[in-house]
Amino acid sequence: MAKKNYSCDVLIIGTGVTGLATAMYSARFNLKTIVVGDLEGGTITQTDEVSNYPGFKNLTGTELANKIKEHAMEYDITILGEFIDRISKEGEVFKAESSTSIFEAKTVILTTGTKAKELGVPGEKELMGRGVHTCALCDAPFYKNKILGVVGGSDSAAKEALLLSRHAEKVYIIYRGESIRPEPVNGKKIKESKNIKIINNTNIVKIVGEGKLDHVVLDKPYNGSKEFKLDGVFIEIGHIPLSDLAKQLKVNLNEKGEVKVNRNSETNILGFFAAGDVIDTEFKQAITGVAEGVTASYFAYQYIQNKS
Amino acid sequence: MAKKNYSCDVLIIGTGVTGLATAMYSARFNLKTIVVGDLEGGTITQTDEVSNYPGFKNLTGTELANKIKEHAMEYDITILGEFIDRISKEGEVFKAESSTSIFEAKTVILTTGTKAKELGVPGEKELMGRGVHTCALCDAPFYKNKILGVVGGSDSAAKEALLLSRHAEKVYIIYRGESIRPEPVNGKKIKESKNIKIINNTNIVKIVGEGKLDHVVLDKPYNGSKEFKLDGVFIEIGHIPLSDLAKQLKVNLNEKGEVKVNRNSETNILGFFAAGDVIDTEFKQAITGVAEGVTASYFAYQYIQNKS
Repeated sequence: MAKKNYSCDVLIIGTGVTGLATAMYSARFNLKTIVVGDLEGGTITQTDEVSNYPGFKNLTGTELANKIKEHAMEYDITILGEFIDRISKEGEVFKAESSTSIFEAKTVILTTGTKAKELGVPGEKELMGRGVHTCALCDAPFYKNKILGVVGGSDSAAKEALLLSRHAEKVYIIYRGESIRPEPVNGKKIKESKNIKIINNTNIVKIVGEGKLDHVVLDKPYNGSKEFKLDGVFIEIGHIPLSDLAKQLKVNLNEKGEVKVNRNSETNILGFFAAGDVIDTEFKQAITGVAEGVTASYFAYQYIQNKS
Repeated sequence: MAKKNYSCDVLIIGTGVTGLATAMYSARFNLKTIVVGDLEGGTITQTDEVSNYPGFKNLTGTELANKIKEHAMEYDITILGEFIDRISKEGEVFKAESSTSIFEAKTVILTTGTKAKELGVPGEKELMGRGVHTCALCDAPFYKNKILGVVGGSDSAAKEALLLSRHAEKVYIIYRGESIRPEPVNGKKIKESKNIKIINNTNIVKIVGEGKLDHVVLDKPYNGSKEFKLDGVFIEIGHIPLSDLAKQLKVNLNEKGEVKVNRNSETNILGFFAAGDVIDTEFKQAITGVAEGVTASYFAYQYIQNKS
């Protein structure tokens, strides 16, 4: 069957909150806008409680995504549930393909985000957002005076533990290796902390709970038992930026595989922008991704204006 | 009377949406946070309709400011209605003063915004947000197929007219000088546009309407009359960044007087951050200001962590 053909001013790849908000702004510039992705709402829909998107005290990730989608749909945009796996630039036109469609676009804004690395243990998927988390910055305030675990040994994991320790009663860092490897300043702080304890050489092999986390199972006993009670466990073993399409276009990536952009959300490829978790920022939040996308749509508009 | 003394981790100067959202995030990092300014809600409260803050289809500027304020007040922050007119850095501590208080802070985040330049004619203040506007990007979509005026001759005014012309039936650029001075690319587009008309050597001397704009009065007749019917008029004669406090600290400013920051919202002065309309961005929106402030709060947290 022949593929369906689309053409547009702005092709936004990624239907998370960043992509949807970007589409809204692009349409406000009267640009013909298509937003396409395989996970509508994006990874935030995996978060049970969002309390850090300014303006909304508290809502679920799905609720926030729906609000931004409904907002975008006030404008003349096309949202498609497809996975784009190929992209090229022919002259000044971008050509992207999914298994069913071909898109021609004057500009592309990549908002594909990241994928959190998983432990791959039983119970992890089922209890995600219900005691199992991947973002201390998002979810720490829900655990005032609680007992938490952080899985990982990187500086990120250490920083997450420090942040959690400002809220929680006790934080256990559970690390598979000999000793965690934070930046010295963070290592020092962990050492000085009264409520962070490191458990090295230990893996979580199972996560257990009915509807919410009850305990984790370790591969070796801690305090005499492999069963370890936790109110929350934060998996901080890294994220994978979904930047394959950028790679196909020879867009500059950093050592983590994140798309390098400037303050205008521009990459090294003219007309190709990126925003949200996929870019080379240290601090990745829904609100920052949305703003980066909005900025990208403005500079996409400028780019199209200056060419025509 | 002795001034009242405060000390905090983060002093946010400016109580607009950027400052309030920044306070919310700072408090989420468990930083002792004070936000102080003389215009609660900021300039967005002068906008009747906001339809471009992703997540809220349509609300007034005051409603948006209130939502973000209520959100911030879920956390342990202090909001003060005072005007800080003096700041210094003594060692590693910032010291700021209003007429009634003295603040000591480990970090400062400047979110004082800008002031739109005014024509200074009768009716302008009264009809602001009711036919008189200062932001085409914000308010263009409300004027589909309407007759609009843009006051100004800069490239910004030209770009605003081009944007408005994508929505409106007709756009008149009203300029006091001999001829407007847009960038060539924009000048060309205006020349080619079918619905933009330039009226040079002309000033608006009065803005008239009951509750909403009815017409403006020109200082010389156009088409035989000084009374000129418009559905909306956009005053685009520039903005003044409120960066005096930054200047006192010898923070680097650009030629417009805007605070120069990097992608981390950091300035050249350690511990001093800036966000929102006061910084050196081309594209200034509520959503981008809020995100810049949120980013500033994160790097303020890092800065404090690394010092302690």
